[in-house]
Amino acid sequence: MTYSCKSSLLLASLSTSIAALSFTLTNSACEQNTEPIFSKTQNFQNLWENGYLCSREAVKQKQNVHFIRWDGNWDKREGCGNGVTRKIYLVRHGQYHLTGEEKDKKLTEAGRKQAKILGKAVADSKIVFDRIVVSSLKRAQETAQIILQEIDASKVKKIEHCDLLREGLPCPPEPPFQQEKPELCYYKDGVRIEAAFRKYFHRSVSEKSASPNMETNELYICHANVIRYFVCRALQLPPEAWLRMSLRNCSLTQINIYDDGLVTLQRLGDAGYFPPELLTVS
Amino acid sequence: MTYSCKSSLLLASLSTSIAALSFTLTNSACEQNTEPIFSKTQNFQNLWENGYLCSREAVKQKQNVHFIRWDGNWDKREGCGNGVTRKIYLVRHGQYHLTGEEKDKKLTEAGRKQAKILGKAVADSKIVFDRIVVSSLKRAQETAQIILQEIDASKVKKIEHCDLLREGLPCPPEPPFQQEKPELCYYKDGVRIEAAFRKYFHRSVSEKSASPNMETNELYICHANVIRYFVCRALQLPPEAWLRMSLRNCSLTQINIYDDGLVTLQRLGDAGYFPPELLTVS
Repeated sequence: MTYSCKSSLLLASLSTSIAALSFTLTNSACEQNTEPIFSKTQNFQNLWENGYLCSREAVKQKQNVHFIRWDGNWDKREGCGNGVTRKIYLVRHGQYHLTGEEKDKKLTEAGRKQAKILGKAVADSKIVFDRIVVSSLKRAQETAQIILQEIDASKVKKIEHCDLLREGLPCPPEPPFQQEKPELCYYKDGVRIEAAFRKYFHRSVSEKSASPNMETNELYICHANVIRYFVCRALQLPPEAWLRMSLRNCSLTQINIYDDGLVTLQRLGDAGYFPPELLTVS
Repeated sequence: MTYSCKSSLLLASLSTSIAALSFTLTNSACEQNTEPIFSKTQNFQNLWENGYLCSREAVKQKQNVHFIRWDGNWDKREGCGNGVTRKIYLVRHGQYHLTGEEKDKKLTEAGRKQAKILGKAVADSKIVFDRIVVSSLKRAQETAQIILQEIDASKVKKIEHCDLLREGLPCPPEPPFQQEKPELCYYKDGVRIEAAFRKYFHRSVSEKSASPNMETNELYICHANVIRYFVCRALQLPPEAWLRMSLRNCSLTQINIYDDGLVTLQRLGDAGYFPPELLTVS
């Protein structure tokens, strides 16, 4: 193996493994570094190399085979768990009018119906929310008001409004938008939405939040891009994948964060509450 | 940079980038190769290096910054699209009795109710299915029979039964099961479930499948592990992440495959059709 072979192999293996597929360090690999990522050969090899066909133990014993490692301390609160499971419900706002200034865009009639139906469904579920957090954008605020009319708001321990949860572009999606967005959007929104993730997503630690049934329920009423980015980050999936998901208006997404830091996506874009004519995406 | 540094760097960068986070090839990286994946430093660096805070263009111009590349030819049918969008609906079977032999396990009363409710919802949606494919395991077959009683089965163009869709262990999950499963399970099930993915997931190509409204609707009634693995594979997410999702009984998952090979998860584990007492996971 020459040095150039080693370095090209390094880049090839970086690219390939970034693509969440394993890569075997063989001489033949050197010949692949000019091929596009996911060449047929690599796809086939990866079925074997990446543990699809054998147990983790068997894979571990082989060199140059790697897993997408779960970060048990993703929230930097390892060992701080208080035994409580956090159930985080994320609602996208209802359908809204696309005209006007971003901050002033209002719900359509359909959007108001969607919010009312979801509010009823939430009320029927008998879930008591320890906390409701609402994006400060008008369409989210309107959605929240309608939902709060349906549920027993007096039982909600805490209602907050948050600028961090406003809609934006969390990071450049892969595959990319057909028309690339201005760099300024990502520059301003990306870190702000990541800040929202770090503020709201972590295992339950405070004594106060500990409830008798050992779970807390929190409702976040915000926006599609924000929710999709949260899902990728919470599940430790590539954040660039956020645009591979689509969320209907007033659809419900639920993420459970357990005491030990494990995270489960219980549902994404749940829109089973709505009649077909109210299934909208914008 | 010594050779040992290079090679340790190579392994470190492989692991890190497999973890779907970018990695910068600096000398400091050499010092990190003994640290656990996702060290604080790396997590922080990755916010900058992985495009969270700037546009793709800005990132592209920097060396040693990598994206999770989307494989446009994942189904090996690039350029074969016929203009039709495939809407793939995946239903997990209803709640079932856990006792008895795997192949004979029957639905519980709740499981039958779930199937009936979902069947009504599907009927109300007015979706005409070009194809319904059912796992050959009893609990899936029973679920399908109940759903077919609710929808106008005479309009379904094709109903098939498939052994490839039977439940199994697609690949060792990450994070791992608390109690590791026998290697034989992955060995037998993994490639069979991958075979099911390759059989059913691809862009629409055949002339026959082209419908006037330029979309086809297909219903697959199968199992939680199978569906979660399909979601990971279809969205090009790390397959090992399948266990980070949870699917309720008779919940609906929808994946759209577009003519150009793009794929969207429209909903996962949609269980909004059910009253709280019928929200079960096993």
